[in-house]
Amino acid sequence: MRNIRLTIAYDGSGYCGWQRQKNGLSVQEELERVLTTICNEEITLHGAGRTDAGVHARAMAAHFHTNSPIPPANLQKGLNSMLPGAVRVIALDVMSMDFHARFSAHSKSYHYRISTDRIQPPWERNYVTHVPFELTRDDMRACLDAIEGCHDFASFETAGSRDRELTTGRGSVRTISRARLVEEDEHHLCFEFSGDGFLRHMIRNLMGTILEVGKKRKSPQDFTNILRSRKRSAAGATAPPHGLYLVEVKY
Amino acid sequence: MRNIRLTIAYDGSGYCGWQRQKNGLSVQEELERVLTTICNEEITLHGAGRTDAGVHARAMAAHFHTNSPIPPANLQKGLNSMLPGAVRVIALDVMSMDFHARFSAHSKSYHYRISTDRIQPPWERNYVTHVPFELTRDDMRACLDAIEGCHDFASFETAGSRDRELTTGRGSVRTISRARLVEEDEHHLCFEFSGDGFLRHMIRNLMGTILEVGKKRKSPQDFTNILRSRKRSAAGATAPPHGLYLVEVKY
Repeated sequence: MRNIRLTIAYDGSGYCGWQRQKNGLSVQEELERVLTTICNEEITLHGAGRTDAGVHARAMAAHFHTNSPIPPANLQKGLNSMLPGAVRVIALDVMSMDFHARFSAHSKSYHYRISTDRIQPPWERNYVTHVPFELTRDDMRACLDAIEGCHDFASFETAGSRDRELTTGRGSVRTISRARLVEEDEHHLCFEFSGDGFLRHMIRNLMGTILEVGKKRKSPQDFTNILRSRKRSAAGATAPPHGLYLVEVKY
Repeated sequence: MRNIRLTIAYDGSGYCGWQRQKNGLSVQEELERVLTTICNEEITLHGAGRTDAGVHARAMAAHFHTNSPIPPANLQKGLNSMLPGAVRVIALDVMSMDFHARFSAHSKSYHYRISTDRIQPPWERNYVTHVPFELTRDDMRACLDAIEGCHDFASFETAGSRDRELTTGRGSVRTISRARLVEEDEHHLCFEFSGDGFLRHMIRNLMGTILEVGKKRKSPQDFTNILRSRKRSAAGATAPPHGLYLVEVKY
């Protein structure tokens, strides 16, 4: 028996998300189907976390156990030749048996990409959130500064399905080690977040309110007040999924 | 009556090409449908040329005549609000009545994008042709040098549907004013072509053979011999459509 870790990039546009679901095809299912064929035994894949429908991954991690003796390089090649182009296995590693993609993770990083072009190029429409406004970058940076560190993010958690096993004892408290705004070019912004864990829709909810601040509809002080209020109702809308990328899971 | 020029960006992935066709939705149809609604009269759009299924445009040009009095800025806004995100009107200009998107064009420019990454990021799969090989750039540049100037490109023309009105007298002779290889980054190459006209599949056929040279399966001298032979059978395969972009039509 071996314990194998996959590092996976995917285009979430055509999927109902990472996690297996009744209605719609998930990335997990797509991978399990091909793994089951190649390994010639029923495979269950355990992901490092979930992503919503339309959210992308540069490097999702997942593990599975198998009795198949197929060498790692051949397994990776076989997977990529059988998977659709929307899902790519970018690395494959044999781990010790106690490695768990979810429970062994120390931190995760996400990017949220924005374009402020007046007209969005068509090939960006599923990969970058279009916000055709002058965004006040200093004010948005003040919001990012406010969330770095350990905070109760209840204001930015969507109700339901909190991961109980991981959150025992810490409720909606999370530590954000890094929250930065990178200006990729004149019209493209990338919001970068790293932390020990993220609540349901947390980054999309944060981005919804940060964009309100960028548009001058709220102030950085409003943002801080919303964070402190620990009330979801105080915050802004949930930003769309297609600008969001899971970029790294650290072990 | 006004004569209006549209400059259009589109993602060709979901279309059967620019030109109206019986089987499949074309970009032209998509635009004509919305124009007919907004202008409240039957609109026929005349494009600067055709693009194949899967080929993209950063700036296709097209014109139409209308009696509608709607101001240009409103027309552009209305179009973009009614069109799907895959098609964007990036400019709209009122022209003199003798302007014709096809016959008034002096030159066109195309880009062909290649990625040489070992594994292609999923979000590039419809927008960049994946060629996971070490490509010999100097040899490919020698091919590009060989096609600059006035040549008979019969070896790189796919049979059928040559535009008779435009090609009277010049057969498969075309003048390429510029053919360059730009290295976007370590793993991304952009082949840039400008000329007074292009034959059917000409750039995709040129790219098919240039990539053979890049992979060292043919030499730059072979390429020159193929060009001189004026026989389609001498050249390589047709490169896939999704790396190709119409980037400019000059008037």
